[in-house]
Amino acid sequence: MLPRGKDSMNNPVFAGWWSLNGNGEMTGTTWVEESGFLEGPVMITNTHSVGVVRDAVIQWRVAHGQPDPTGYWWSLPVVAETWDGWLNDINGFHVKPEHAFHAIDSATSGPVQEGNVGGGMGMVCNEFKGGIGTSSRKIETKLRAFTVGVLVRCNYGSRKHLRIAGVPVGREIPEDPAYASASFNELDRGSIIVVVARDAPLLAHQLKRLARRVSLGLGRDGSISGNGSGDIFIAFSTANPGAAGTDDVVNLQMLPNDQIEPVFAATVQATEEAVINAMVAAETMTGMENHKVIALPHEKLREVLKKYNRLTP
Amino acid sequence: MLPRGKDSMNNPVFAGWWSLNGNGEMTGTTWVEESGFLEGPVMITNTHSVGVVRDAVIQWRVAHGQPDPTGYWWSLPVVAETWDGWLNDINGFHVKPEHAFHAIDSATSGPVQEGNVGGGMGMVCNEFKGGIGTSSRKIETKLRAFTVGVLVRCNYGSRKHLRIAGVPVGREIPEDPAYASASFNELDRGSIIVVVARDAPLLAHQLKRLARRVSLGLGRDGSISGNGSGDIFIAFSTANPGAAGTDDVVNLQMLPNDQIEPVFAATVQATEEAVINAMVAAETMTGMENHKVIALPHEKLREVLKKYNRLTP
Amino acid sequence: MLPRGKDSMNNPVFAGWWSLNGNGEMTGTTWVEESGFLEGPVMITNTHSVGVVRDAVIQWRVAHGQPDPTGYWWSLPVVAETWDGWLNDINGFHVKPEHAFHAIDSATSGPVQEGNVGGGMGMVCNEFKGGIGTSSRKIETKLRAFTVGVLVRCNYGSRKHLRIAGVPVGREIPEDPAYASASFNELDRGSIIVVVARDAPLLAHQLKRLARRVSLGLGRDGSISGNGSGDIFIAFSTANPGAAGTDDVVNLQMLPNDQIEPVFAATVQATEEAVINAMVAAETMTGMENHKVIALPHEKLREVLKKYNRLTP
Amino acid sequence: MLPRGKDSMNNPVFAGWWSLNGNGEMTGTTWVEESGFLEGPVMITNTHSVGVVRDAVIQWRVAHGQPDPTGYWWSLPVVAETWDGWLNDINGFHVKPEHAFHAIDSATSGPVQEGNVGGGMGMVCNEFKGGIGTSSRKIETKLRAFTVGVLVRCNYGSRKHLRIAGVPVGREIPEDPAYASASFNELDRGSIIVVVARDAPLLAHQLKRLARRVSLGLGRDGSISGNGSGDIFIAFSTANPGAAGTDDVVNLQMLPNDQIEPVFAATVQATEEAVINAMVAAETMTGMENHKVIALPHEKLREVLKKYNRLTP
Repeated sequence: MLPRGKDSMNNPVFAGWWSLNGNGEMTGTTWVEESGFLEGPVMITNTHSVGVVRDAVIQWRVAHGQPDPTGYWWSLPVVAETWDGWLNDINGFHVKPEHAFHAIDSATSGPVQEGNVGGGMGMVCNEFKGGIGTSSRKIETKLRAFTVGVLVRCNYGSRKHLRIAGVPVGREIPEDPAYASASFNELDRGSIIVVVARDAPLLAHQLKRLARRVSLGLGRDGSISGNGSGDIFIAFSTANPGAAGTDDVVNLQMLPNDQIEPVFAATVQATEEAVINAMVAAETMTGMENHKVIALPHEKLREVLKKYNRLTP
Repeated sequence: MLPRGKDSMNNPVFAGWWSLNGNGEMTGTTWVEESGFLEGPVMITNTHSVGVVRDAVIQWRVAHGQPDPTGYWWSLPVVAETWDGWLNDINGFHVKPEHAFHAIDSATSGPVQEGNVGGGMGMVCNEFKGGIGTSSRKIETKLRAFTVGVLVRCNYGSRKHLRIAGVPVGREIPEDPAYASASFNELDRGSIIVVVARDAPLLAHQLKRLARRVSLGLGRDGSISGNGSGDIFIAFSTANPGAAGTDDVVNLQMLPNDQIEPVFAATVQATEEAVINAMVAAETMTGMENHKVIALPHEKLREVLKKYNRLTP
Repeated sequence: MLPRGKDSMNNPVFAGWWSLNGNGEMTGTTWVEESGFLEGPVMITNTHSVGVVRDAVIQWRVAHGQPDPTGYWWSLPVVAETWDGWLNDINGFHVKPEHAFHAIDSATSGPVQEGNVGGGMGMVCNEFKGGIGTSSRKIETKLRAFTVGVLVRCNYGSRKHLRIAGVPVGREIPEDPAYASASFNELDRGSIIVVVARDAPLLAHQLKRLARRVSLGLGRDGSISGNGSGDIFIAFSTANPGAAGTDDVVNLQMLPNDQIEPVFAATVQATEEAVINAMVAAETMTGMENHKVIALPHEKLREVLKKYNRLTP
Repeated sequence: MLPRGKDSMNNPVFAGWWSLNGNGEMTGTTWVEESGFLEGPVMITNTHSVGVVRDAVIQWRVAHGQPDPTGYWWSLPVVAETWDGWLNDINGFHVKPEHAFHAIDSATSGPVQEGNVGGGMGMVCNEFKGGIGTSSRKIETKLRAFTVGVLVRCNYGSRKHLRIAGVPVGREIPEDPAYASASFNELDRGSIIVVVARDAPLLAHQLKRLARRVSLGLGRDGSISGNGSGDIFIAFSTANPGAAGTDDVVNLQMLPNDQIEPVFAATVQATEEAVINAMVAAETMTGMENHKVIALPHEKLREVLKKYNRLTP
């Protein structure tokens, strides 16, 4: 995920991060916290490939020229993992630097594919197939208009806790033979969630506030963030394009805290929706050792939503 | 709230705290964080009376004898506030040391009153009357049995966001003349939530994990933790009674992280329920300057829950 | 300490805080952290009077008119304590609201008195008399000029650890009858340190970086930050006067991280010096129950510095 | 660095970490913070090789058998970097998995080599040659005996700030032709410091207290922790060998906070000394592109210490 397209490799943006449950890895966060900036892409991969992807980001930059002759400031890439070892041969270490190069080179703007794509391929969410999901909200304050987007790679949870639109879907689709997904007990593996505050001029400490509120959206979906769940969130703003100047005092804009509430609401809502979008888009998959994870059954979901009067006819 | 009855004034318990939104005050937290201990009661009062209550806790202790001749370790009381200035004449500074003494002297074990009581008197929650709520869960792991209790003083939120049992109650009980509670827009004032892990031997860093998960429970109730919301949580365990020994190495017990998940689930569930219990118990109140806040209308609530098939007949 | 003179009561400044050792109290810090702003004065008092001073700041504001009709944003005062119970009858609760009103009303700009003044009266530092100390540095970067000032109320430490200008002064002035200050073993009670980045346009997260570096200055003076030491630091910048606007997007300036190093160096140096200035200015004092704490003996100090070739003749 | 010899790969120890300046990378820290445990080795390498080393630790474990059939808990290795790009061809990516395997396989107990070894090879410290340094202290409390050891890889600082034993050595050995080390201005690259509390039964939150105090030791050596300095510290205890049990409640021991002060003092002192030991042990080195960094000149150092009466004859 490239904050400002390919230029963003040399174009830091204000950022903040937070961890609801640290049973995961997101490299580069101590520098995000200290500097207030995200200096390159947010890469997502599986738990055992964080390293190869991290170094590959640096290699890509070296190959494409160093903007800074001292070569230091861009050497702390942000790479996040979740565990996909049920479907993917994670111990085969199949991710290579080329995959990371390709991901950077082919990054474009526009809609993001959802479901079983990229780093979302091997995800399992609430004992159904998980993956990549997105959602966004437009905000119009008295004087301004912003967009808040959320990208989630969801990989957490027990079916019994799952709620969709407040409906206890997980308990309504129990583990009967038709829907069972093998024994996923204890396999809570967390979510990486990226919040993008497009055009909203938020500073680093405000973006941390956004990252914190992601947990409220996960709460709406029923998450309890189990012990094994690595729930790590990062939020950035594409406003203030020249914020990371180095020579002289930089001019910035900031949305006052007193105007920030709609951004919070949008973050919570988009998080809630992006998780469900990931599950709805994901397709049944059979992976390593014939492990099969079924998709959230759409027809059954409609039935359950109807039962609880939450489906607009 | 006295962790181990009145003895707890000299009987520290392991504790951890966390803030979802720091627009509030809970004194004593830097020492909770540093030491890992809660050394006395958790007092709750209104925003403008935190000081008088804080010093009164110290005065009470001075009056009842110092356990430690250097007199230092018990001088950082935990006192939390939320703002009740809509119903209460907060600028009249009516809370006096005597009220704090009385609260300590009359502390007992057993069920806690809910609704418009004590520090919960002036609360407004989701534009209905708020107050004190409690909820608890029994946990039986393979080898052990624990109780997790939650006490909430809720004072946050906009009606439009309120969910009960996943049902969009807030949108179903709109601000019509019958239910309106005057203009509470922007008056999000936060919640103080205390999690008690009774008998569960959790260390300080594990209790912080519990405190973090409170936000998932608030998420279930629809909270977005607005800018003005001071959502501050503290969790403690009554296990390990002699943990704060001073002379020699202390013997402790710890619940492994691998067994902690039911405690997380209980924390999330009990938080979700305690907020609703507070609102259900609270009664319509008319306060300062004839400000009126209506209680959550029970009959209407039942109707709404029925509409969404969430009321067991 | 009023960031922008008396006007600052309604004139927030960017701020950040950090705690090296949380065995102390500084109220209001969760909101400083969350909002990025310090909204009023930094008050310092003794451990048992934090409450009365805190509520008094709110009372002062109420009495002088509320800038904001909802009355909320200015209700979380910053009040810090250190323990002065060796010299002061701390359990007599002698501080009254009037003392706080007087402190606010009489705040002026200009040089700050050092030594046995105000909240520094009962301090003991490295087993000598402590108190208030200040120090500042002018910084000239290629394009700008700033001032960094440090105010310390020092109350920590064992004589054996004390270093001045790198010289082991504490070990050279041992506890002989002439210099002994009674038994202060274990009475490490911490320091409150305020860093003022005057005119340097630093954002909240950058000011937290400054607050962290205070520990490096304390390290130079030999501190080990013992268990009982409440070492809590707050840094603010008086640049960006309109930063806390509420209506529309605010325009700000920021010093780039790449230009921040001289501010870090100034913070460390001024901290190192302010502690020593406090000790040099403080005078021998006899307090409660005839407890006596001697001042750092100037003549003996000169001798020791000369012995280690650190006194310019 | 293997906490309990090679067994430690499956033998977690309590740990805590802290960052004085986050301009660096230490992978695995969010899980250390959340779980309270360090689950494997602490690996140190250069900035551009963190990834390869991280994944190699997992590969090593996979190759040596998974203790846990779900394979999850040990997949978040701790790998720390500092930048060695002045002496080392960092953009050549010369570190391979085999180097990491070899480091794990050849780990032994006993004295650690200092100076230009391992990850310390390319270090520059205060504009002299840096590297690996160690120091330890024995602590005897009334009832117990512990050891605190510090391992530092130092790579920070400007010569002008360097102090040794309180003496302004940096200013006394100015950048004259004989001692100049080329232009290292702005090349502050930080330190990774590991504190080992051997036999001292400290819990996770107490070990974080130790990690914080490392900054006081760096302060004694004159550090200002410049913008580019990644100063990241981790502390662990080898006491409580079975702490990470998974089945039932675990029995632990804890050193009370009231007995912890000598451990703090030892941490500060050993940090101060380990940095100097690294510089004293390091040897002049010529690296990539004929870049040369001279060692701290021992004879000149002795002269300077003598000038300030800090050399025992």
